[in-house]
Amino acid sequence: MDFHLTEEQSLIRDMARQFAQERLLPFAALWDEEKTFPVDAMRAAADLGFAAIYVSEDHGGVGLSRVESALIMEQLAYGCPSTAAYISIHNMANWMIAQFGNDEQRARWVGDLSSMKRFASYCLTEPSAGSDAASLRTRAVRDGDHYVLNGAKAFISGAGDMGADIYVCMVRTGGEGPKGISCIVVEKGTEGLSFGAQERKLGWHSQPTASVNFDACRVPVANLIGAEGDGFKIAMQGLDGGRLNIGACSLGGAQFALDTAIDYVKERQQFGRPIADFQATQFKIADMATELEAARLLLYAAAQKVSEKAPDGTQYAAMAKRFATDTGFDVANRALQLHGGYGYLMDYPIERVLRDLRVHQILEGTNEIMRVIAARRLLG
Amino acid sequence: MDFHLTEEQSLIRDMARQFAQERLLPFAALWDEEKTFPVDAMRAAADLGFAAIYVSEDHGGVGLSRVESALIMEQLAYGCPSTAAYISIHNMANWMIAQFGNDEQRARWVGDLSSMKRFASYCLTEPSAGSDAASLRTRAVRDGDHYVLNGAKAFISGAGDMGADIYVCMVRTGGEGPKGISCIVVEKGTEGLSFGAQERKLGWHSQPTASVNFDACRVPVANLIGAEGDGFKIAMQGLDGGRLNIGACSLGGAQFALDTAIDYVKERQQFGRPIADFQATQFKIADMATELEAARLLLYAAAQKVSEKAPDGTQYAAMAKRFATDTGFDVANRALQLHGGYGYLMDYPIERVLRDLRVHQILEGTNEIMRVIAARRLLG
Amino acid sequence: MDFHLTEEQSLIRDMARQFAQERLLPFAALWDEEKTFPVDAMRAAADLGFAAIYVSEDHGGVGLSRVESALIMEQLAYGCPSTAAYISIHNMANWMIAQFGNDEQRARWVGDLSSMKRFASYCLTEPSAGSDAASLRTRAVRDGDHYVLNGAKAFISGAGDMGADIYVCMVRTGGEGPKGISCIVVEKGTEGLSFGAQERKLGWHSQPTASVNFDACRVPVANLIGAEGDGFKIAMQGLDGGRLNIGACSLGGAQFALDTAIDYVKERQQFGRPIADFQATQFKIADMATELEAARLLLYAAAQKVSEKAPDGTQYAAMAKRFATDTGFDVANRALQLHGGYGYLMDYPIERVLRDLRVHQILEGTNEIMRVIAARRLLG
Amino acid sequence: MDFHLTEEQSLIRDMARQFAQERLLPFAALWDEEKTFPVDAMRAAADLGFAAIYVSEDHGGVGLSRVESALIMEQLAYGCPSTAAYISIHNMANWMIAQFGNDEQRARWVGDLSSMKRFASYCLTEPSAGSDAASLRTRAVRDGDHYVLNGAKAFISGAGDMGADIYVCMVRTGGEGPKGISCIVVEKGTEGLSFGAQERKLGWHSQPTASVNFDACRVPVANLIGAEGDGFKIAMQGLDGGRLNIGACSLGGAQFALDTAIDYVKERQQFGRPIADFQATQFKIADMATELEAARLLLYAAAQKVSEKAPDGTQYAAMAKRFATDTGFDVANRALQLHGGYGYLMDYPIERVLRDLRVHQILEGTNEIMRVIAARRLLG
Repeated sequence: MDFHLTEEQSLIRDMARQFAQERLLPFAALWDEEKTFPVDAMRAAADLGFAAIYVSEDHGGVGLSRVESALIMEQLAYGCPSTAAYISIHNMANWMIAQFGNDEQRARWVGDLSSMKRFASYCLTEPSAGSDAASLRTRAVRDGDHYVLNGAKAFISGAGDMGADIYVCMVRTGGEGPKGISCIVVEKGTEGLSFGAQERKLGWHSQPTASVNFDACRVPVANLIGAEGDGFKIAMQGLDGGRLNIGACSLGGAQFALDTAIDYVKERQQFGRPIADFQATQFKIADMATELEAARLLLYAAAQKVSEKAPDGTQYAAMAKRFATDTGFDVANRALQLHGGYGYLMDYPIERVLRDLRVHQILEGTNEIMRVIAARRLLG
Repeated sequence: MDFHLTEEQSLIRDMARQFAQERLLPFAALWDEEKTFPVDAMRAAADLGFAAIYVSEDHGGVGLSRVESALIMEQLAYGCPSTAAYISIHNMANWMIAQFGNDEQRARWVGDLSSMKRFASYCLTEPSAGSDAASLRTRAVRDGDHYVLNGAKAFISGAGDMGADIYVCMVRTGGEGPKGISCIVVEKGTEGLSFGAQERKLGWHSQPTASVNFDACRVPVANLIGAEGDGFKIAMQGLDGGRLNIGACSLGGAQFALDTAIDYVKERQQFGRPIADFQATQFKIADMATELEAARLLLYAAAQKVSEKAPDGTQYAAMAKRFATDTGFDVANRALQLHGGYGYLMDYPIERVLRDLRVHQILEGTNEIMRVIAARRLLG
Repeated sequence: MDFHLTEEQSLIRDMARQFAQERLLPFAALWDEEKTFPVDAMRAAADLGFAAIYVSEDHGGVGLSRVESALIMEQLAYGCPSTAAYISIHNMANWMIAQFGNDEQRARWVGDLSSMKRFASYCLTEPSAGSDAASLRTRAVRDGDHYVLNGAKAFISGAGDMGADIYVCMVRTGGEGPKGISCIVVEKGTEGLSFGAQERKLGWHSQPTASVNFDACRVPVANLIGAEGDGFKIAMQGLDGGRLNIGACSLGGAQFALDTAIDYVKERQQFGRPIADFQATQFKIADMATELEAARLLLYAAAQKVSEKAPDGTQYAAMAKRFATDTGFDVANRALQLHGGYGYLMDYPIERVLRDLRVHQILEGTNEIMRVIAARRLLG
Repeated sequence: MDFHLTEEQSLIRDMARQFAQERLLPFAALWDEEKTFPVDAMRAAADLGFAAIYVSEDHGGVGLSRVESALIMEQLAYGCPSTAAYISIHNMANWMIAQFGNDEQRARWVGDLSSMKRFASYCLTEPSAGSDAASLRTRAVRDGDHYVLNGAKAFISGAGDMGADIYVCMVRTGGEGPKGISCIVVEKGTEGLSFGAQERKLGWHSQPTASVNFDACRVPVANLIGAEGDGFKIAMQGLDGGRLNIGACSLGGAQFALDTAIDYVKERQQFGRPIADFQATQFKIADMATELEAARLLLYAAAQKVSEKAPDGTQYAAMAKRFATDTGFDVANRALQLHGGYGYLMDYPIERVLRDLRVHQILEGTNEIMRVIAARRLLG
């Protein structure tokens, strides 16, 4: 057991930290306010390899493990949780194509996604199939060399005319249940592909979110990733990584909130002394730091398990996602409280982080589903 | 002991409920989005007596107790916590003038405030005097028949050109500490009175918030409420009621969130059945209802104590405010989680309520200060 | 709404308080250590009417409502939670006979139970039918003028050779499910009635606990309370009251722990001043008092509903029992922590209260079942 | 970063696990009931090196790091938290002599302590100096070749006629404050050394606890460990390790409680199916496992920091002790609840573990003091 980062890990983390400090943090409030999808900043991230973090080197990616991916996501989220989270989703989609696609598919998409010349979205959730992903109803019917897609996806990060170019979609090609699901890539501009109105959300403003609608949308059979029926398996493997990354985003956002609160309580004076001198402040800070560090270690440990395809990798990813995202929100919420009235103002960054982190407890599987997954193995 | 509302209390509550359902709830989302100060709706509330709830009948008010005031505020907040909370502040300011002012002052202001022909703000907090209100530094120096005010107030609800007309201000006329503080009314339009930029806030969008600045602002000595040095005492008495009301606003907002969540989980299907069928949902709903009901009873009991000027009234108001506002936020937060991704969308009302209720844990004395107040008597 | 006790309620509470201070509190530690069933003290309680609190006056009881019963139990538990809880069970059993029995049965038992000349136990739970009470398997087969009972009851408070004389038993006279259950009184000394070894428990040492075994135990048909098949209904009605009382016992024990902790922190010096001066102590005390008061009010409100047979009485009893017993344990646990190492010693009373209160979260229906009951109506 | 145990660590852990399963777990209930100080079992542990775990090999110990020490303590506590905790204290005392003593002192004591031929106690706390250790008042006055000790120590684990042989004592040889404190070894049998009555405690029954009294107790100057004035420094260094170990004991006890609960819920049937099938059970198990694993990782990480004398080692030891002992108790408490009524019985092991773990939140510095220590560096 060794809790030190390797030298390489330190370098990667520092690079991500510096990038986040310079290219994300100064602009996060503006992107939040103006609902900007920060294309240039993300392409600069891609220049550092952050759009293909765990795509293998053979396939043109950086070939890092889930541990390094978590380190990077955590740092990016320190600068902007919303943008980091989108980058995480983009990585997941890129990796799915790289990992499960064929050479021709990799050639078509992985390069562009790795440079973020094009952006990706991941389409699993449907209006009536949230936690129960296997019940999805978007249908793809084979018609010659094409699939004809009908149905709709909901809450799709990156979706929209100003958003992603490549939609990695889970659709039903067969019967009910998980085995009837396949993974098909739909490119923007395909006839029959359209987007709903942009969702107005509590946070995550730097990424567009919309429904993705398929109305007799014809997609070449060549866009099928893996074989028919592989979709759910691909989705689940992708989700292990996605959960680690979203958990890491919570860690980064919460660490930023904690650091900001520490600075604040050391400066803010009440009753003639810094509020850091009050024991209630001290206890709150101590608990925030303690819980956050515990969550961080659990997330890294889970990332190692997922990287190593450990039999309990899915369990640990679920546990770590649950704990990191719950802790992350709680830390941000306490940081807000420590700021008093200032914490409620958009001139201070805490309320934005709070808004951004809130959704991490819901997506990539709600934290309730995470408990179901963890319990399944613990009690199985 | 009797936990039934009296017939009069039932009527009052039902009237407030109906008003909130008809005049607040349908518009709350819009006011939130467009940052509307809903003058007409509030004047309609004033027509029902809701702008002078506990101003005595002698002074032109409705003369209800703090219990009825809590019942009303709770119902109004069911419709819109932000608007209800402003009405609560307006009531506090109106009551201060009516209770501690003289006949001439009552004649000048209480009528207009009770009809909401004019709106009031309450100015206590300063940038560096939040929890430590007694250290406030806005100074009022006597100059003939006038006080000359210099200084600034922060986070003033209702403040701004489009906002309140009457500012009930705590200012320093004497030496340091609480005994040097006096209460002076400043009317909009007074030279030297200006407002800062509108604060951009997480919630409470239906009420303007800004700093209130005094730059050699000359105010007639006739605007002094009570005697010089009475300010802190007036402020503290006002706050007992203010805390009850803000707590009641949390109860109402949380009840709305709970009711909305109950409806949602009974309709939302996952895994082939309503999510209300899942035990984790049931436990969450049961806990939300239980904690909310306990908080409600504590708040009503505290309201009775404050009404009766019980020696532990301030302690109970602090305890009830702390518990009701913490519980209120937690209930809204769990309601959001029960909504899954939909809870994160502005098309659903939960995230708005969450944003509105968050500040109740901070203002009228932070919940940390509430604990200090409660402990003082418990350990005294 | 009125949160004041009536004059009569005040008198009753004060009488119970004085009794608990004089006759229970000074001996509770000894009874705990020596596992004494304090027969004399309980008979003294019965002299005050505390063994037939809500038995109607017509039937020789005191005829108080559930509210007064809660007030009494709370005060008795201040002196000794374990003894108070047994008295609560005895009251429940006495009331069942008085309420659902016939004149002849009342004549035989209610007088002796009301004076505690004889003691009662309530036999519902079985080794494999805890939360799922309706699945109980102890069978009573009619044989002429007798029922022949076979089976076993578990965790029976008061059971044993040195314990109760009268066992109010829920047994199966019919088919599966709640409708096959009847209520039969079995007297100590009946052939075929025996007791298991005394259970060694974490707490509740002043009341014996054992299994009650029926081995071809012949009981006169005249001992059937109500009609055949009425048992489950009787049990459930009894439980509403039982839950209120056990919740009240948690309130009393916790109030004692809180008062003791307050005294302690004002005296105990560390770092040159009383630990009451430290903010972390103050916050803990404030939260304990706040939560306990909220739980108390919820319990009283539920008691009123049960007394009035309100349609949501069962829901409120479940909610109040859950909240009061959870809060009670948490308060006792924090009181222990405030005592530092001394809290861990039997020379101080806190660890005893902690041990006693722990089981309240489990019995009369676990707190998990309480949530199921509450949710059933909330979501029904 | 690598979360796998090394091969050596695995072997050590497995050896400790096997020992605990064979020599502690089967007897823990009996030792608890009979308050046995299990000398033979502990000597068998010493045969495996568990009495000198981090005493350096040069000094006759096993020379392991704090990480391995934590692994061992965790496993021993799986078998019996109380015995493991005493072994932890013994290790701390042995290490203090070995680390800070001179050759002659090591020769006299370390061998016997490492084999547990003799047992050690650590004497820091005094009746009025608990959290505020630096204010201790036991005085040692130089008189020729002796120190004359007067005063008393409280809550001393292992103390008593049937208990430890060697008392490593912190006493005041100089002025007020930490710099006046020295570390002196007092052997059983020294004139003027006596013990108070055995404390009756909630748990930790397999180790005696008593006050240690010095009444003109003459101790050779040769028993001074280090120099005069070194005591507090020695104490604090010892405590970092002691905190890690006590935290590890909580992890082990809690893991046992969790495993026991998992077995139970899979077997226990209610409503026709195992209670493991109920979602509320599943969520509870998932949360217990998640929080426990997070606490475990934080503790190991802190152990590595302390081993490496990292500048934030003390902070991390405090954070890990706080989190592991709070989590440990909470896990045991939920395990008890999952057992229903059976959890309350001494025939089941859960209530014993609960009682044992409770004190870990108090000793080696209360968890409140842990927060103060953590905050000092975080805000420093």
